[in-house]
Amino acid sequence: MLSKSQIKLITSLKQKKYRLQHGLFVAEGFKTIKELLQSHFILHGLYTTETFNIDAKEAFLISEADLKRISFLSTPNMALAVFKIPEPKPIDESKLIVALDAVRDPGNLGTIIRLCDWFGISDLVCSRETVDCFNPKVIQATMGSITRVNINYVDLEIFLKETDMPSYGAFMEGEVVYNKVLGDRGVLVMGNEANGISKAIETLIQEKISIPRFGKTKATESLNVATATAILLSEFKRR
Amino acid sequence: MLSKSQIKLITSLKQKKYRLQHGLFVAEGFKTIKELLQSHFILHGLYTTETFNIDAKEAFLISEADLKRISFLSTPNMALAVFKIPEPKPIDESKLIVALDAVRDPGNLGTIIRLCDWFGISDLVCSRETVDCFNPKVIQATMGSITRVNINYVDLEIFLKETDMPSYGAFMEGEVVYNKVLGDRGVLVMGNEANGISKAIETLIQEKISIPRFGKTKATESLNVATATAILLSEFKRR
Repeated sequence: MLSKSQIKLITSLKQKKYRLQHGLFVAEGFKTIKELLQSHFILHGLYTTETFNIDAKEAFLISEADLKRISFLSTPNMALAVFKIPEPKPIDESKLIVALDAVRDPGNLGTIIRLCDWFGISDLVCSRETVDCFNPKVIQATMGSITRVNINYVDLEIFLKETDMPSYGAFMEGEVVYNKVLGDRGVLVMGNEANGISKAIETLIQEKISIPRFGKTKATESLNVATATAILLSEFKRR
Repeated sequence: MLSKSQIKLITSLKQKKYRLQHGLFVAEGFKTIKELLQSHFILHGLYTTETFNIDAKEAFLISEADLKRISFLSTPNMALAVFKIPEPKPIDESKLIVALDAVRDPGNLGTIIRLCDWFGISDLVCSRETVDCFNPKVIQATMGSITRVNINYVDLEIFLKETDMPSYGAFMEGEVVYNKVLGDRGVLVMGNEANGISKAIETLIQEKISIPRFGKTKATESLNVATATAILLSEFKRR
């Protein structure tokens, strides 16, 4: 049975403040937990209602009722794991990387991490206003990709001022991406869901690119940031 | 004040069965409702807590408490509208269209409808196993694009057998899409979130295409169906 203090600790990890304080985050779902266990991430506690194929001193068999108490899901899924938040590695500026300017939706960030993994982007840089990548909904959406993408939270203005990488930004009124020659090295900046890239960041971007709209003039006014990232990463990688 | 029978009717529209029975669906959120009001969709009832800039006999001012009673959202947003489900138009087989084989997630279908709108795809064909496009979560996610994309639910096997359009399908082991010459006319088939395109449909597809993975061998095993649709539609439309 779980102690009161264990339950209190785990449920507190829903909030960023307590994740930072304890240096821990929660992952749920067999597939995600399995991928995290096979990675460099360090397990702090594994709580399952059925025997999991793992022999660790950190593994505990718990009741359905206890799982319900600690789970962040409306229908808990047999296992919950607590991992240590890893120290991010330095940013590798020799390749293409992605930077996010205040992306707020956990589902969007999760999808973008998965896209980085698919397209071999090993570094993701997030402005401090971007949703925390150890938010349980982000972890859920990445499906394990979080272990293969190095994520740094930085002051994006300072980062862009200091880097010598060419910078590309997604704008509604940018140059049509299909006509651009895109390099193997650079930083692709994607903006906030409602407001796009902020004015302060805009002035630091060298190349404004855009995905043209083919629909009628009345068509939807913007693409979702995750689908736009998908299209742009595909453009950078196709030859 | 709303009558008991009005509340019962509106809340019943959460379920497909009652949407079909009454020929009605619910839209929430100012932006979506405004786009629907400006389209060919026919209003059945508009319920708002503040005066909306519309002069119609179907508009009712209601209390916050009543809006809470009928809303499908956890935080109701000033207005809820009930519209008639429009009769779909015949499928235009002279252009590029998208077909979905059992896409189940309302968010994914909503994103795909928005993508069709962006890329000027006027027809979307859904297998009967695909989530209903008048599901409130789909309507929410399309942000008005539902008014500009003609959606037919069909027996996808029969449709593919009978059409003379070239057919393309997204498969993990398909030909690299970047190397293909893609036509202006055809049907692009996208599969279910977990299982991809079903065996029965696979045999009816002429061209298997695929988005290559650039990440490490251990990278995420698949792209989300909505992001894959984004990349493939971009490939069809870019010149």
